[in-house]
Amino acid sequence: MGLFGRTGIARRTILAIGLISLIVGGAAQAQTDPLPSWNDRGAKKAIVDFVQATTTQGSPAFVPAAERIATFDQDGTLWVEKPMYTQVIYCLERVPSLVKARPELADVEPIKTVMSGDREAISRLPTEDLEKILALTLTGMSVDEFRVEVAKWLDTAHDPRWKRPYTELTYKPMQEVLQYLRANAFKTYIVTGGGQDFVRVYAERAYGIPPEQIVGTAGATKYEYGKDGKPVLIKEAKLLLNDNFGGKPEGIHLMIGRRPLAAFGNSTGDREMLEYAKAGSGARLSMLLLHDDAAREYAYGPAHGLPDSKVGTFTQQLYDEAKRSSWTVISMKDDWKRVFAFE
Amino acid sequence: MGLFGRTGIARRTILAIGLISLIVGGAAQAQTDPLPSWNDRGAKKAIVDFVQATTTQGSPAFVPAAERIATFDQDGTLWVEKPMYTQVIYCLERVPSLVKARPELADVEPIKTVMSGDREAISRLPTEDLEKILALTLTGMSVDEFRVEVAKWLDTAHDPRWKRPYTELTYKPMQEVLQYLRANAFKTYIVTGGGQDFVRVYAERAYGIPPEQIVGTAGATKYEYGKDGKPVLIKEAKLLLNDNFGGKPEGIHLMIGRRPLAAFGNSTGDREMLEYAKAGSGARLSMLLLHDDAAREYAYGPAHGLPDSKVGTFTQQLYDEAKRSSWTVISMKDDWKRVFAFE
Repeated sequence: MGLFGRTGIARRTILAIGLISLIVGGAAQAQTDPLPSWNDRGAKKAIVDFVQATTTQGSPAFVPAAERIATFDQDGTLWVEKPMYTQVIYCLERVPSLVKARPELADVEPIKTVMSGDREAISRLPTEDLEKILALTLTGMSVDEFRVEVAKWLDTAHDPRWKRPYTELTYKPMQEVLQYLRANAFKTYIVTGGGQDFVRVYAERAYGIPPEQIVGTAGATKYEYGKDGKPVLIKEAKLLLNDNFGGKPEGIHLMIGRRPLAAFGNSTGDREMLEYAKAGSGARLSMLLLHDDAAREYAYGPAHGLPDSKVGTFTQQLYDEAKRSSWTVISMKDDWKRVFAFE
Repeated sequence: MGLFGRTGIARRTILAIGLISLIVGGAAQAQTDPLPSWNDRGAKKAIVDFVQATTTQGSPAFVPAAERIATFDQDGTLWVEKPMYTQVIYCLERVPSLVKARPELADVEPIKTVMSGDREAISRLPTEDLEKILALTLTGMSVDEFRVEVAKWLDTAHDPRWKRPYTELTYKPMQEVLQYLRANAFKTYIVTGGGQDFVRVYAERAYGIPPEQIVGTAGATKYEYGKDGKPVLIKEAKLLLNDNFGGKPEGIHLMIGRRPLAAFGNSTGDREMLEYAKAGSGARLSMLLLHDDAAREYAYGPAHGLPDSKVGTFTQQLYDEAKRSSWTVISMKDDWKRVFAFE
């Protein structure tokens, strides 16, 4: 019998205190883990260490709140990019309306192939043909008309594998990173090869990121007056910024004007952004998401014996640069407890 | 003798309460006048009414905080633009360093004229020549080198009339508008025909506006690797955005992606931005600053019998559109109690 075991009251008191400690301790732990969907491995530690180093007053790597910028690629980094970019699916599904408005296009390639409904033939369309389809379906209307069209489509379109709206296919662990950074006064930006105007339609709802924090591939607009004399901005088929490869740091400079402290990507198109963030002084975080989880999402890239695809390519060379440059590679399979919020 | 005048104590109490009311009332009034440098006229009232309409919960024109965007032209709207844009002065003063680095330019026009020091001849240089000088002095270096050069110049350069650093020549009443809007959760942007990278160097210090909230005329940059293998962004002589006229709403769409609720300008280059802001739904504020105060600043524009200059032009047509479209014209002479903070 121990020191405090002499009476039933004492025993019950000790038991109660023990229970309270357990409950309170558990709650405190849950509250202080900003990344509950991450396994306790190197990637999670790298994120937490980076945030503590840059935001703790007196830390040698402390950065004033106004300068805390973090940039995220979207497709394949914040949400699913397979089997096809969501925006490409949108453009393909817009083709019937396009032909209705401009019947002369029905017999012109590549519109003819898209209208045939032959999925096999559509998936084989070369990049130049896809670009023609993008130009035809993403330009020629006002920015307001475009916003309405995309919002309407997103309300009804579903991903074929998970049977859910595309905006639900964001990665829960990355959502936690966004929230964790924002809770520490970081401004979070999307820096995407996708169309800036397209992503702006849903990014506030899907990620809590406002339109002015979306940097993406952007076309020119033209200021005109509508029939009612009111000004409109018409989307033109003239490329201003190809926000891939070197275009990512160029776009970051154009639209943000500060070098990010942290950058997140998943493909060769993100390489330069990750280099650019990492090359700054002080504590820096460049992270590369490796899709190695065919069961829960997809597996692609050389590390998994799968061929690189045209889009979202993760080459051996990129993997080697990550190792050499102290970027952190995130393994979807090993680092993430869960992939989606709906799981 | 009045009701409360019967005893000395009562009298003193009343006196004390009266004094407290006066002091508290006075303090409250000072606290609630967000625009102390403005005379109580229509322009001030238009600003206060707009802020109250858009930020008061339950008001039919209430706008959620995230959507509160206000855009300001810089030259001639936030600071002095005469006798020459500050950026043009910078470029002209950079010419000797340019010639030192590239001696072959010394005998080439318009560099030769600038090097002659003949102010009369320099002031007569046509726009195309000025553009050549701008291209030569604003491009060909990294964005970091450029930032350092501009910061160094601003530290020593002085305006010839007021003998003060250019960054002190901001208008105190407009600074109050910026602060008042920000205190009401507006995001304030500069949307300038001037160079985006140039303005970013000092806008945080001069106006409290961070680099990511500067939209301006922008050239392309090119992502390269320096001799040390580190990435650099080189400023190229390729124009991406001419942020004047229709380019202002186009630049706003490109870099902000929302239509501003309020816009401030002073010249024909701002017309489209003022139209664009005003054409939105709900309460809108478009303001045009008229320079009619030769004693305290400058007077130019048709309303004052002065010829329009090449830059910062305020035409009769613009004035007529302002009246027709319910923009508010600010008279520097009549609406502003003071022009500069140092007065």
